[in-house]
Formats: sequence, C-alpha cells, structure tokens
Amino acid sequence: MDIQNYMQTLGRQARAASRALAAASTAAKNDALFAMAAEIRARRDALLAANARDVEEARAAGLEPALLDRLMLTGKGIESMAAGLEQVAALPDPVGEITDVKRRPSGIQVGKMRVPLGVIGIIYEARPNVTADAAALCLKSGNAAILRGGREAINANRAIAACVRAGLAAAGLPEHAVQVVETTDREAVGALITMPEFVDIIVPRGGKGLIERISRDAKVPVIKHLDGNCHVYIDDEADPGKIVPIVENAKTQRYGTCNTAESLLVARDIADLYLPEIARMLAAKGVEMRCCAESLALLREAAIDGATLVAATEADWREEYLAPIIAVKIVADADEAIAHINAYSSGHTEAIVTENYTKAMRFLREVDSASVMVNASTRFADGFEYGLGAEIGISTDKIHARGPVGLEGLTSQKWIVFGNGEVRK
Amino acid sequence: MDIQNYMQTLGRQARAASRALAAASTAAKNDALFAMAAEIRARRDALLAANARDVEEARAAGLEPALLDRLMLTGKGIESMAAGLEQVAALPDPVGEITDVKRRPSGIQVGKMRVPLGVIGIIYEARPNVTADAAALCLKSGNAAILRGGREAINANRAIAACVRAGLAAAGLPEHAVQVVETTDREAVGALITMPEFVDIIVPRGGKGLIERISRDAKVPVIKHLDGNCHVYIDDEADPGKIVPIVENAKTQRYGTCNTAESLLVARDIADLYLPEIARMLAAKGVEMRCCAESLALLREAAIDGATLVAATEADWREEYLAPIIAVKIVADADEAIAHINAYSSGHTEAIVTENYTKAMRFLREVDSASVMVNASTRFADGFEYGLGAEIGISTDKIHARGPVGLEGLTSQKWIVFGNGEVRK
Repeated sequence: MDIQNYMQTLGRQARAASRALAAASTAAKNDALFAMAAEIRARRDALLAANARDVEEARAAGLEPALLDRLMLTGKGIESMAAGLEQVAALPDPVGEITDVKRRPSGIQVGKMRVPLGVIGIIYEARPNVTADAAALCLKSGNAAILRGGREAINANRAIAACVRAGLAAAGLPEHAVQVVETTDREAVGALITMPEFVDIIVPRGGKGLIERISRDAKVPVIKHLDGNCHVYIDDEADPGKIVPIVENAKTQRYGTCNTAESLLVARDIADLYLPEIARMLAAKGVEMRCCAESLALLREAAIDGATLVAATEADWREEYLAPIIAVKIVADADEAIAHINAYSSGHTEAIVTENYTKAMRFLREVDSASVMVNASTRFADGFEYGLGAEIGISTDKIHARGPVGLEGLTSQKWIVFGNGEVRK
Repeated sequence: MDIQNYMQTLGRQARAASRALAAASTAAKNDALFAMAAEIRARRDALLAANARDVEEARAAGLEPALLDRLMLTGKGIESMAAGLEQVAALPDPVGEITDVKRRPSGIQVGKMRVPLGVIGIIYEARPNVTADAAALCLKSGNAAILRGGREAINANRAIAACVRAGLAAAGLPEHAVQVVETTDREAVGALITMPEFVDIIVPRGGKGLIERISRDAKVPVIKHLDGNCHVYIDDEADPGKIVPIVENAKTQRYGTCNTAESLLVARDIADLYLPEIARMLAAKGVEMRCCAESLALLREAAIDGATLVAATEADWREEYLAPIIAVKIVADADEAIAHINAYSSGHTEAIVTENYTKAMRFLREVDSASVMVNASTRFADGFEYGLGAEIGISTDKIHARGPVGLEGLTSQKWIVFGNGEVRK
C-alpha cells in the first residue's frame, strides 16, 4: 500500500465532501446523527465482537492494563456512544450564524458569518468511542473529518466507521464526510499532518508525547492541550468557609484530570490561620505536600497527623502530578501569586479565593491562562460545565480557541457584505 | 554580535513587558500614543535626516525605484504617521471586554474576556511608517511588539523607535513594550520566528516571497496574507444597473491592491446581453481580457473597439495579475460559479451580483473565502471600510482571524468564571 497516495486520496475526498457539508442543512446533519446512533445500537453485537478481537490481540501483545481498560467496549459503553450522537444532534447548529452586522458610511452592511473550518484531522489513541464522538462533533459543525485512531482499536474503529457511513448515507450526505484511516501504519499520521491543501486543522487527543510530536511536525494548525498545572490561590481576604471546600474539590475530586489543582498558593497574612486546616484535609485524603521553606516550617510546627511533607524543589512549581501530590507555596499577596502563576503555569486553569472585588477583577484580567476563576473549583474547566454541550478537547494555545473547545471552536467567522450596488470611492 | 543571544534577550524583555501591558489602563496606552505622536512631530527633521541616509545608501546599492519610493519619508508622510498614532488612540480598547456571561446549573457564571495575545513579532520590508503603525496597533491591543523592518530603512526605523520609547516612558509604560531589532542580519528573522517561548504570533507584511518563507519556517502561528485572486460573478438575475459599475470599480479602481477583482464569471443566460457592455468598459480602460472559449467567441463576434482578447489557459483561473488584466469565464449558473470560485480562488474576497435572494444567501454561505459580498465591489474588503479603524493586515488563513485584521485580531478570548464557593459534583 502506498501510504502517501492513500492519504492524499482521503484528503481529496474529504475536501470535496467538506463543500457539500458546509452547505448541508441542520436537519440533514441531525438525521445522519440519529441514523448513526440507530446503526450503532443495531450492530451492538458486531461492535462487541470487533472490540473483543482488538482486546485479545492487545492482550497478547502485552498492552498495559490501563490502556486495555480504555480499549475495552461494553454494552453500556456502546449505548452511551449512541446517546452521545443524539446529544450532539440536540445541540444548536453553529454554522451560518450571522452576527455584528453594521451599516457603514459607504452604504454597505458588514457582518460576520460562522462557517466550518473545512477538513479536520483527529488523531487519537486506544479509545474507540472517540471515533463516534469526533465524527459527531465534526459533522454537526459542518466539517469533514479524517479520523486516525490507535492501531489497537482498528477492528472496533472499522465497525464504528461502518455505522457512521450508513448514517451519512441514510441522510443523503456524502460518504466521505467522515473517513476512518484504514491503515495502522504510522506513516499515515505523518501524511495527515502535512497536507495543508486538504486538511485545515489537526486535533490530537492523547498523551503528551503524541501531542508534542504532532505539534512539532504538523504543517497545519493544531488545537492542542499539553499540561494542566492548575493553581488555587488563597488570598488573605478569602471567605474562610470557601477555602477548604474549593481546595478539596480542586485537588482531590479526581487526581488524573487536567483541571485538577497541582499547586496551592497561600497569602502570608493568613497562612498560619488556614494552611494547617487545609493540610489536615489533604493529609486525611493522603495527599503529599511539596512545600516551600516557609510553609514546610509552618506545617511541621502544626504537627498534623499523617501529613506527608516534602521540601519542594524548583521543578515542583512546574509539575503536573496527576497524582495525590500538591505543591504548596506561601506568597506575599495577590501580586506575587499572579506573577508566580504567569511564570510557572501551563496556562490551563487558575482560581483565586477572595472576597476582595479589586483583587478578584485583577486576577481575572492579569492571569494569562485559558480559564481564570474567582471562588470556584478549577474542576469546572470543562466543556460540559461551561455549557458547550460537548467538547472535542481543551486548548492551551492562545490562538483561535482557548480552553474547552466545543462546536464553535471547530468553526471560524468570515466577513459578509450586504450591498446595494455600492462601489468604493 | 551573537544574534541568537540578542534575539533571546529581546524576547525575554518583550515577554516581561507584555505582562505589564496586559494590565495597563486604556488611559496609559492612549497617553503613550499621543506622546509618541508629539515626539514624531518634534523630531521631524531628525527623522527626515535619518531617512535621507537610508535613501542615499539604498540608491547607491541600486535599489529599484518602486522600493525607493516606499522607503522615502516626506514631511507629509511624517505628519500622517503622527496622525495615525492619534487615530489608534481614539479607537476603543478591545482588552478586558467581557461577553457571553451565562449562569450554569452548578451556580457558576461563565463568560469570556478579551485579552492580548502577548508578544507579536512584525516582519516587514522597506516602509518605515510600518514601524509607527505596528507599534501603535500592538500597544493599543495590549501586546508587546518586536519589530523587524527592512535593512534599507534601518536609520529611519531607529529614529522612529526612539520616539516610540520616549512615548512609552512619558506614559510610565515599560520601555520594552515595543522593541525594534537593531541588527540587519537576516539570522535575526530566523530567530524571531522560532522562539515560541517568547513570541506568540508573527505578522509578516511584505511580498509573497517573504511571507511564504516565514510561514514555512515559523514555529509560532503566522497571520498571513498570500494571494488575492478575487472574483465577481454576474448572475442571470443581476440588476442591469449594478453590473458595469461593480465590475469597473472592482477591477479598475486600483490594479495593484489585493482586493482587486482578477476573475469575472458571467451566467450563460445573460452573457450575450451584458458581457459586451462590460467588455466595452474594460477595453476603454485598457484592461486585457483572458477569455474562456465561449466568452472569446462571443466577444470576438461583438467586435469591440480596442479590446485585447486572449484565450485563457488553466493558469489564468488562479492568477493574481495585479495589473490591467482580467480572466473572463462564462458559467452555467450560480452553482458552477460557486464551484469554480471554491476550486480556484485564493480565499480572499468574492462578490455576486444578483437580485435573487436565495442565490445571494447561498453564495454568502457556500463560498469559502474571507470576505463574501452581495452587490458590492470587492474593493470594500479593507479594515477601514469594514469599520475596524485600523488594519495590521488581511488574513487569508481560516484559523483565528480571517480577512482584515484590526485590534480585535491581535487579541483572543479566555474563559472567566464568577463563582461563589461552588465545587464540582
């Protein structure tokens, strides 16, 4: 198989399909999504069988248990895949939205129209449900999709792709609107990310290694998410009743998510008053604390039962632990907190706990991260919690889309002009 | 001089200054712009003298007359540079704008805040006035700027940079908010476009060669403008009174601008009725017509005085002539026009002339270009005509900013959350 040629063919077909999709009615796109859901439910046993082959091969190849877990489909998982397609059908169609129309002195009326990006390449790892998810989000936003899943999931992905194609056909949409790369050759990824003539944007979903590799080599823009080194800053004017609940939720609700807090900053003036209380909660949950010299001394003095206290190194201020560990630092004030965050954060999500209006507004404005919060847990940084209805990923880039990326992040705005025969003077 | 080291220093200083600029008040930014304008007026003679040295050296080096013309500053040019700074001061400050705040079921209020991109690298050629223009737009949008002008203009650029620094100092803003690269070594450009840790976006302004080179080598996003192969489509339901004026303005008002029409598409049903009339106007203006076989036969038969008719080749459909030449093609209908445009256009600006509502709306939606117009001249695709107040360039990319890029295009939106102690369930 000539991989370059094959990928070029997929690209050319996607580009052609994208024209029809951009013009497709909301009804046709929704019909396709409902038909895909019905196909997935109807072919439940075939999907389970295909997935069982993947799992068997992966197990024989010695895939680690965490990856096997992501690879595995259950009856419940298949139902939630189908339900997910129907949920995307229920979301408002972003395409064609006209905004900001203003009449200019020349007589023309100028505004913006929301339009699909064109062709989106999605590169992901073992989870086969991403195939259905990503297909749905790209379709609803009027984009053609080329999906490249992990080699471990190839049988399930092919089976899901067949459901997607059947759904497209049922709604009269072009069959190449969603294409699944049928080869597991790695060269296909290299080709996909270097065809600017056919692919408008790449969304990698997976581990940091995958994303760094793709960002480095891509010749088209990449919507990417790297680290989530999120901070919670407890100001000296924090409401005492909000401190522990927010830190507890931000750090301990889930350890492995990108919006989990990894660093805690505490204002010096209230550190001796509240840091021991926070530390008792963290110790009770088994969270190790990597402390600056000052907080280390304070917490050692507090002699908290079961607390694991470790002296922090410079590396701790940058670390995304994804584990029951948190970096702890005492800072002079909100100024030092903002400076620390802007120096060490990965730009994902940061929160301040304060009752002071001016410090809250300054934190919102001056902290340079995709999501900035006042008196709320960093765990809210999520497409569903923000009301996007769905999420293709969370961007830590500053260009185009920042933070949770929903349907709107898969579109852009062009200028439109309503004229009446005007010419330029 | 160690260029890499020097550029890293500029980058580090720009990043530090960008934090202060993001937090700067509108008043301070405007004060700086007014002070810069005053400095430029006060140092008029020094600027003219610096420019005279540039011009002398460029003439001795045999620079071509068109470039010499761009390089040359006059008293009037200096006044308009100063006035331009004051105009940017008068524009609304985009930074800090809060929009779309919605309360979510969890209790949090989620919205978006407009924020600067951070550090912008501007790479341009001989025009020294770009130094003042770009400094003003970056400053007003809260971004630090690193400006790399053409080697021919280095003396004037240094003199303008001194005015900019004086203006920043007068307003109490960091001196590194705007930095002019002081070396003419080409390696500086290579360094500037490959420092993602210090530079967030590159805006190249200049010829196609420069822009292609930068886009190829950059390791940060580039807001770029390549070709402007703009189309006018005359539908069979066009208002006869609008046809000739729009084609005339779109093609002949100025030949060298990117929003000038380069291709004319005419619906078959009205071609014999109106194409000769259009051709008479074009012939009178000395515009050569590169015609498809059908239009060539039609226009030869019409025997128009002074018309230069040439058989078009495939290459003509893609060409940006920037000259008194236009490609002419007869198409079956709006469908074929849209398909032709999406196949051959550079994605800059296209116009339909029609009285038919449905075809107008379809053209607006389905033509995949940065600006799409109904019954108006393509020449309107311009930041000033669109009401942006100023323009750093016109983007033919689909990501982030499409079409004319003003202050808003130099910003992005982050998510903000107003909470009241909420935690995620």
